[in-house]
Amino acid sequence: MKRISFLNGNFINHAEAYIHIEDRGMQFADGVYEVILFYKSQLIDNEWHLERLFRSLNEMDIKLPYTYEELSNIMMNLCQQNNLENASVYIQVTRGVTNRNQLIPEGINPTLIVTVSPLTITTPDDLINGYSAITLEDIRWQRCDIKSISLIASSLSKQKAVDLGYSEAIFVRNNTVTECSFSNLFMVDNNDNLVTKNLDNHVLAGITRKRVIELAKAAGITVIEKPFTPDELIAAKEVFATSTTLLIRPLTKINETIIGTGKCGSITTKLIKSYQQFLNNID
Amino acid sequence: MKRISFLNGNFINHAEAYIHIEDRGMQFADGVYEVILFYKSQLIDNEWHLERLFRSLNEMDIKLPYTYEELSNIMMNLCQQNNLENASVYIQVTRGVTNRNQLIPEGINPTLIVTVSPLTITTPDDLINGYSAITLEDIRWQRCDIKSISLIASSLSKQKAVDLGYSEAIFVRNNTVTECSFSNLFMVDNNDNLVTKNLDNHVLAGITRKRVIELAKAAGITVIEKPFTPDELIAAKEVFATSTTLLIRPLTKINETIIGTGKCGSITTKLIKSYQQFLNNID
Repeated sequence: MKRISFLNGNFINHAEAYIHIEDRGMQFADGVYEVILFYKSQLIDNEWHLERLFRSLNEMDIKLPYTYEELSNIMMNLCQQNNLENASVYIQVTRGVTNRNQLIPEGINPTLIVTVSPLTITTPDDLINGYSAITLEDIRWQRCDIKSISLIASSLSKQKAVDLGYSEAIFVRNNTVTECSFSNLFMVDNNDNLVTKNLDNHVLAGITRKRVIELAKAAGITVIEKPFTPDELIAAKEVFATSTTLLIRPLTKINETIIGTGKCGSITTKLIKSYQQFLNNID
Repeated sequence: MKRISFLNGNFINHAEAYIHIEDRGMQFADGVYEVILFYKSQLIDNEWHLERLFRSLNEMDIKLPYTYEELSNIMMNLCQQNNLENASVYIQVTRGVTNRNQLIPEGINPTLIVTVSPLTITTPDDLINGYSAITLEDIRWQRCDIKSISLIASSLSKQKAVDLGYSEAIFVRNNTVTECSFSNLFMVDNNDNLVTKNLDNHVLAGITRKRVIELAKAAGITVIEKPFTPDELIAAKEVFATSTTLLIRPLTKINETIIGTGKCGSITTKLIKSYQQFLNNID
């Protein structure tokens, strides 16, 4: 079966989805993106993702002439055409194509790309042992609140972590833990509070982050959004990362330190189960 | 006449120069570039540009299977095919096309793009009044020494400067002046020394910067490469920016302050003339 993707108004053969070399996404990283979970034929927290997409576009002053409904229909339609019930949906919007110019051009049509990929959801059993992470200097720009395609710092950092034998890179900026290279970060402190970096220009307002905070509060867990240091992180009882495709990923070793018991902790397990329940209750 | 560009081994109609949507340049800003001056049918400081291109590629761990000679031949050939004697040559190399993956993939073929555009060289007479610039916070990543296509911070900053009524954005990081959004920055201090930020990860090792330093030294001007503050910049006798396409651009107003006499200063004029002479002596 041919993979189908969406490009500028058309559903086309993915292998034939081409853009001009002077797309500003290609020349200036002048664009934004979203990754949305499609689970049991439903777009999960779709409205939150689309809100964030339009916030990112607005911060970059890119005007996308599509409604939430039109974008949702494209995504649903694309998953159907690719015969997928569980998928990750990738939306990319760039400013569009024009002769290379350092300044931001006006009046050009944005490029809209939507692709879908099969996704297998992890279960609590897959996650018992957790994953390892290394702290690295946050070398990204100062607008990490925009979900920009300017991702090379994240990609190089994640690769560096893997090359050093870890699964994840945790960013540290001025002795504050910000987030992971492609996910947000939570820790459980010694009072069983759930702690994550408060939102500012150094972290992305993650959708799974937001959902996990809601689920934690509903479960009676105190959630604190504040800056914390690498030393505080390493002293935590539990640590996990959140993202649309990872969902909740326990981190049981950071640098040379084993976190808690070295296994997925009880609060993390509770949240993984809550999230699974949240997914199964959607219809 | 059709504009011709070079893409992955072929000289093709520019309007038909397309790349796949999953080029990592498009999805992760995973690529680098160079802009080379082509003047009177010669590539100016070509070897320095190619050295820097391969340094950038090496820092990103992208392997481009082309020699200096092959790249030079492509550029020369392209200028000829487009019937240009004076041009700016744009080379872009990305890691290539693969299914979207946060990690750096191995074994894929890099994408090589070369385009050329007509260029008119400014003369000293064009520059008498100079240009204005505004200091803005340097929001870019921490590897400005790599000539990465991850340019959105630069593009948004330059646009912000223009929207505020200035021609250029001068970046300031931790109270140190780094460079302009797409050019290096020099000032002439009260002892007639030429001062520019020393090279580190916060500035690009500009080719025109390097050439201007050589020309200044040959003219008996003392050149000092060191950090300096916005206050020192504003107190300078003369200020100018350098880049491959601007060459030497006097900046005679910074924020609300008139620099020197408000006209292109004597040392700047001397260097503009030296550079012009340098260009005219090449053959």
